[in-house]
Amino acid sequence: MKPAIVAALLLCLAIAAPAQQNSLTGKWTATVDFFGLPLYWQMELQQQDDKLTVKFSGDKGEGTTSDGKIHFLAADKVGGSEELNATLVDGKIVGQVIWRDGGDPEHKPYIRNFVAVRTPERPSTPPQTHQFEPTVFRKQFSSLYDPVLTINPGDTLHTTTVDAGGADAKGQQRSLGGNPQTGPFYITSAMPGDTLVVHVVQLKLNRDYAISDDGIVPRGMDDQLAVRMKDAAKPTRWHLDLDKGLASPVDPGPHMKNYSVPVRPMLGCMAVAAPPSSAAPNTGDNGPYGGNMDFNEIVEGATVYLPVAVPGALLYFGDAHALQGDGETTGDALETSMDVTVTVDVIPGKRTPAPRVENATHIMALAYAGSLDDAIKKANANMAAWLSEQYQLTPHELGMLLGTAAEYRISEIADRNAGVVLKISKKRLESLTR
Amino acid sequence: MKPAIVAALLLCLAIAAPAQQNSLTGKWTATVDFFGLPLYWQMELQQQDDKLTVKFSGDKGEGTTSDGKIHFLAADKVGGSEELNATLVDGKIVGQVIWRDGGDPEHKPYIRNFVAVRTPERPSTPPQTHQFEPTVFRKQFSSLYDPVLTINPGDTLHTTTVDAGGADAKGQQRSLGGNPQTGPFYITSAMPGDTLVVHVVQLKLNRDYAISDDGIVPRGMDDQLAVRMKDAAKPTRWHLDLDKGLASPVDPGPHMKNYSVPVRPMLGCMAVAAPPSSAAPNTGDNGPYGGNMDFNEIVEGATVYLPVAVPGALLYFGDAHALQGDGETTGDALETSMDVTVTVDVIPGKRTPAPRVENATHIMALAYAGSLDDAIKKANANMAAWLSEQYQLTPHELGMLLGTAAEYRISEIADRNAGVVLKISKKRLESLTR
Amino acid sequence: MKPAIVAALLLCLAIAAPAQQNSLTGKWTATVDFFGLPLYWQMELQQQDDKLTVKFSGDKGEGTTSDGKIHFLAADKVGGSEELNATLVDGKIVGQVIWRDGGDPEHKPYIRNFVAVRTPERPSTPPQTHQFEPTVFRKQFSSLYDPVLTINPGDTLHTTTVDAGGADAKGQQRSLGGNPQTGPFYITSAMPGDTLVVHVVQLKLNRDYAISDDGIVPRGMDDQLAVRMKDAAKPTRWHLDLDKGLASPVDPGPHMKNYSVPVRPMLGCMAVAAPPSSAAPNTGDNGPYGGNMDFNEIVEGATVYLPVAVPGALLYFGDAHALQGDGETTGDALETSMDVTVTVDVIPGKRTPAPRVENATHIMALAYAGSLDDAIKKANANMAAWLSEQYQLTPHELGMLLGTAAEYRISEIADRNAGVVLKISKKRLESLTR
Amino acid sequence: MKPAIVAALLLCLAIAAPAQQNSLTGKWTATVDFFGLPLYWQMELQQQDDKLTVKFSGDKGEGTTSDGKIHFLAADKVGGSEELNATLVDGKIVGQVIWRDGGDPEHKPYIRNFVAVRTPERPSTPPQTHQFEPTVFRKQFSSLYDPVLTINPGDTLHTTTVDAGGADAKGQQRSLGGNPQTGPFYITSAMPGDTLVVHVVQLKLNRDYAISDDGIVPRGMDDQLAVRMKDAAKPTRWHLDLDKGLASPVDPGPHMKNYSVPVRPMLGCMAVAAPPSSAAPNTGDNGPYGGNMDFNEIVEGATVYLPVAVPGALLYFGDAHALQGDGETTGDALETSMDVTVTVDVIPGKRTPAPRVENATHIMALAYAGSLDDAIKKANANMAAWLSEQYQLTPHELGMLLGTAAEYRISEIADRNAGVVLKISKKRLESLTR
Repeated sequence: MKPAIVAALLLCLAIAAPAQQNSLTGKWTATVDFFGLPLYWQMELQQQDDKLTVKFSGDKGEGTTSDGKIHFLAADKVGGSEELNATLVDGKIVGQVIWRDGGDPEHKPYIRNFVAVRTPERPSTPPQTHQFEPTVFRKQFSSLYDPVLTINPGDTLHTTTVDAGGADAKGQQRSLGGNPQTGPFYITSAMPGDTLVVHVVQLKLNRDYAISDDGIVPRGMDDQLAVRMKDAAKPTRWHLDLDKGLASPVDPGPHMKNYSVPVRPMLGCMAVAAPPSSAAPNTGDNGPYGGNMDFNEIVEGATVYLPVAVPGALLYFGDAHALQGDGETTGDALETSMDVTVTVDVIPGKRTPAPRVENATHIMALAYAGSLDDAIKKANANMAAWLSEQYQLTPHELGMLLGTAAEYRISEIADRNAGVVLKISKKRLESLTR
Repeated sequence: MKPAIVAALLLCLAIAAPAQQNSLTGKWTATVDFFGLPLYWQMELQQQDDKLTVKFSGDKGEGTTSDGKIHFLAADKVGGSEELNATLVDGKIVGQVIWRDGGDPEHKPYIRNFVAVRTPERPSTPPQTHQFEPTVFRKQFSSLYDPVLTINPGDTLHTTTVDAGGADAKGQQRSLGGNPQTGPFYITSAMPGDTLVVHVVQLKLNRDYAISDDGIVPRGMDDQLAVRMKDAAKPTRWHLDLDKGLASPVDPGPHMKNYSVPVRPMLGCMAVAAPPSSAAPNTGDNGPYGGNMDFNEIVEGATVYLPVAVPGALLYFGDAHALQGDGETTGDALETSMDVTVTVDVIPGKRTPAPRVENATHIMALAYAGSLDDAIKKANANMAAWLSEQYQLTPHELGMLLGTAAEYRISEIADRNAGVVLKISKKRLESLTR
Repeated sequence: MKPAIVAALLLCLAIAAPAQQNSLTGKWTATVDFFGLPLYWQMELQQQDDKLTVKFSGDKGEGTTSDGKIHFLAADKVGGSEELNATLVDGKIVGQVIWRDGGDPEHKPYIRNFVAVRTPERPSTPPQTHQFEPTVFRKQFSSLYDPVLTINPGDTLHTTTVDAGGADAKGQQRSLGGNPQTGPFYITSAMPGDTLVVHVVQLKLNRDYAISDDGIVPRGMDDQLAVRMKDAAKPTRWHLDLDKGLASPVDPGPHMKNYSVPVRPMLGCMAVAAPPSSAAPNTGDNGPYGGNMDFNEIVEGATVYLPVAVPGALLYFGDAHALQGDGETTGDALETSMDVTVTVDVIPGKRTPAPRVENATHIMALAYAGSLDDAIKKANANMAAWLSEQYQLTPHELGMLLGTAAEYRISEIADRNAGVVLKISKKRLESLTR
Repeated sequence: MKPAIVAALLLCLAIAAPAQQNSLTGKWTATVDFFGLPLYWQMELQQQDDKLTVKFSGDKGEGTTSDGKIHFLAADKVGGSEELNATLVDGKIVGQVIWRDGGDPEHKPYIRNFVAVRTPERPSTPPQTHQFEPTVFRKQFSSLYDPVLTINPGDTLHTTTVDAGGADAKGQQRSLGGNPQTGPFYITSAMPGDTLVVHVVQLKLNRDYAISDDGIVPRGMDDQLAVRMKDAAKPTRWHLDLDKGLASPVDPGPHMKNYSVPVRPMLGCMAVAAPPSSAAPNTGDNGPYGGNMDFNEIVEGATVYLPVAVPGALLYFGDAHALQGDGETTGDALETSMDVTVTVDVIPGKRTPAPRVENATHIMALAYAGSLDDAIKKANANMAAWLSEQYQLTPHELGMLLGTAAEYRISEIADRNAGVVLKISKKRLESLTR
């Protein structure tokens, strides 16, 4: 683990930690140094006198404690185990974990150092509004960047984003292009295993032009359309009439001189930091962490759910579009800078497996994969998990619900992953019995 | 060519043929016997004295005529040619065509018999309404079945369909299952190269139940969802409340006891006869001819465009659904019988390359292929062709329009082909300059 | 059921039926008239006095018999049942079956007529060699065509095929193009549920040219290659040097003047009749029945396994290639006519789920689907089933075997389905313990 | 640009720079600081007195020079331009480039600092052999890691790799798992636009076990196989008999007690540094830079071609497999540590678009994409480009060659990208006329 990261981490964790208690009983978040990368595990301890019962990342075990010494052994379902030898130091549990692989008994166990702090609880301070002016822009959804601001669940954040090419509201180049992001924002009490909730309050255009393309991405062309479009794929400029809320092409061609289309501002990128790894995803990519989702229903009024992978979640957003057709077929939507207002919240202890979005009328399960055919499979799986969690639907019921209520949208064909969204109307959900 | 077919064909063609003229000038439809299958070619002749200029299926040529004898030679762009030796007999041109393959000069030419009649014009009789009670149901979108009724462009047809399993409004089994079709209907003056227009006036439920499934089709499941759903995929029955327009499961499971969903009657199948071939597609399949499209916007008020491949178009429909989520994820929608009212029309001389649908708010280009990734490519190609025909959009403009106005729906994941639909709002089209 | 078909069927079945016995004990093949289509069921009866125990298409049941009257009831695992009321007439069981759907108890039962004959046993006559000169060529892998010849298991067949375009050894057009097939051949004792075995003894070129194409099929081109190849896809002619066994292009272009490549004669199509349906697959298609597999290892020495779907199996073959690169990338291989020698055999009571091929060194599981990504999944499933049947491999063992021995080939990208083949070396199989 | 990188870069470049000349004439490699990332451009200058003609990254231009001041303007084909104002300092050209975007004339020009050095020539020193013992292992194919060793073209390198899980020849954990790499190695004179050539001289097992899995990756299972394999996917251990060259499972199951399979040592990963970006690919990924290709023909005797993206190429390799079935179906091959001997070389001025491999019998074009269907398209494109470069094949010829000589292998189904390889036998190439 890089020392600077650990220090910063412990600092942030410490801020939110509740008053120290004598008993070990409670939830703890352990950070393990795994060959230089932090891994996070949730521990739940129950102390009765000198006996401990424990849940270690879901595995159950037992142990003992005395004089600040702690020892326990937890077992997984496939013959592996985690053994812990540690000490309570200044309210933190510090020690070693020995991990044995049940699948391969001849494998030497991993012995790793860790430190655990009490999992912070949601702060009880009243909601605040933060004004934030970004000065650096990030090109990776990384867990290693320092947070630019710390925000409590319930707080509101007002800030700005540069366009996908790195230009700001004044057209000034502020970053290398490729979806430079505003953030990351550290969300107090958000812990691995939680879900981050981001409600998009307002998306406001702040300049009078957008940049786009006039081609069709390869994933959208068969061989004959490819021949027909072979000379397109050039940058195109759009005028944004901020008063009327209309976009019109600056170089319209003979048949689009009167073409104008209402803007519908959206965020092409919203992400939490991806799980720590030597190679965080670049800001053109997407996955369970969200990222460059290019879903044109992430507009004002939408709420986005993302799986927290590191303490503080580390929220990023950017790549605002004045308007985007489904799939971002041209490779670039109407790329522009934007004023962004969001509120954030945290659902503790429940992790969404992949991005989900909710608005006034629908719940929406997003999925991104190497092909549309793989993405729709994953969108169904994401929604099936959601409906099971929320409504305990059986397979029989799940089939009946999807059969009568599925609405599929293609969110993305422009990036490395293609995206499919499965929407279910809230009207259909209202009549379900929990 | 099967003699019965030829006779029926000539009979039908004859009905609509305009009064015989002395000059050969005009449009002719040639039927060629190609090893037992009919091939259709459009010929356009211009006679001046004994000289002929000709367009033969797009190829230009010249020739002569005297004493009812006709000879001409037309050339294609890759070195091939069609030579015609024929005689005018009772207003028909009867003779031989010699087809030479430019790509392979050593290939022996094809010499085939043909007969050409004047391409019929749209009848000028006032629109009629036809009541039709089906007695047989077809399982192929074939050009070889006898028409059950002949209808003029502009006419209205009222009839019924059995459900996908072959049961009628009384639950009586009327056919082997697998989307048995009502039809085919012969549409006067519809000729190969034309577009058939079918406007859905009314779709009315006529019984109080539907049959469906509770599984998810393989194309919709990743490996984990497959394990979870492994015991589903059983038939399920739905009660249809015809007064309230609501569907509810007969065996709802614990969480769907109060579940009911508004019906939205649609036709899962609508087709013209596929091009003649030894193997017409079965009624579970789809393609350029339409077929088992399972697109849940083919509802009341929708207009469907299909490419005419044989004289009379031969319209089929069936597989009505009381309601269907996108994609028909369960393999069966809410399958039921229905009362169907449609009006038909013909756009002469223009052929849609694949099915298109239009309603009050959108134009929609449909595409079906072996994967969603191939289908979206073809949906874009279908729409690109449509926008070029209607608005002469350049590639530059096409990119800009799709980038700002594309709406993708997944129509079908249950059948051999997957389906993607590209919709464009008519509001966007209104501002285009033709 | 079409009367002619039934008559022909009963005739063929009768030929091979063993001497009539007094007891009903034994295997029977029932043919059911299902709205005009034959369905086949295997029945196994055990008679003891007037009591019957029965297996009806896998479902177990009990019944009684007296005075030639037969009644029994068999139940499936999901609450459905088959009830039989019949009479023994001239060694055949004739009567009605009542089929009740367990999944939908409100569904009215199907009541259908059937006739059952004793399942014929493999003839004990010594192997014969048949010389057959085809006069008609079929364009569907249909169960409805009359067999051109009846052959016993163990017999050898020598015949010829026309090329994919319908031309014979003399270049004479004999059929409409599109893979016209020689056959179908009725294989005595082959019954639904069996596996047909076809061993390719000899494939001999019989003319000095082949026809091909110079393009790349759309499934093989990305957008840039499509632009590059936009003017290709023209027919090309190849000279076949029968003595030297070499193919060389007639119009080679500047860089292929000396290009010649050894021929490797193969059959592009081999099939049994697809299960009866209103719409048999055309001879450009492929599936579990085999068909237009275009797999360039179906050469001399290969043995092909196909699932029998109708009595007699109805073997077809054609579409011979002098040579084909993997995938038939150009859409047409080196298409030519051929002299074909095969031996046929039957594995009773075991059905391969999809085509399989075996040669001196490998076993090969074939799969065809709408995309390569779906085809590889099915190839693995086909091989997994094979290895389970033959070697009872557990999932753990299956993973280990595939991980160390899988060899994937792409057999087909030219047709509607793409094809993937999974090969396993026989050397790997030799060390398995049954 | 990060200063440390620039310094290191200039240092490395300086080493190989030829003796300073008075004239500017020659090839130069410019490094541009683009918002913190290095971009590389090749410049070719011709000086005649004070006049300059220039090729700037392919764009042609003119300029002047006097007193060490340099100015020129080059134009691209779509209306954009590059203007250069610079000074000759110590044999380097240092200054600013102004880049104007032709596609969007309203876009403000980019003004960026750069430094250009003479493109180094291939060293003329005799080939050396380097022995290298790795101490750190990299998890990204990054351009930002310091080289561990500098090697001349023609040199031989002997080193070792740890297994995919990070364990070395003694089973000692040396790195976090996930294909940790040995390297990067800086190859003198390799410049962006060149091709790196790596010849695999020897791959030698150095321990007696390998780790693998017994499941099938999701991309390889249909829904039914997924249900069947649901409890597999556990780690499995293999014994490697180094003397006999055989692998056998330690826990074989009942049917594989005698199973052993000859090892065929290969490198799962070989890569050059990916183009500089904030987010270098992780070592589980693959792409044009090579990477985790898992192609089981990268064995002794194979030569790998990779596109150089940064000065020195920065060669990585690792993830050695004792043996791997095609596609790495189980997710892990027989993962082990290895002794590796390679020789390296550089083809200046020619860039392979994607990885290519050559052995004694075949040339092989590799492609990796989100689906097999996309990968085969790219494999064909890669091979088409290769055949055009080497043999100037026309589209007509290209079609004929692929149609008769294509051999497709599926290299990879275990990773994010799927891989397809197109092989062409050298026997077919021998008869081509250049």
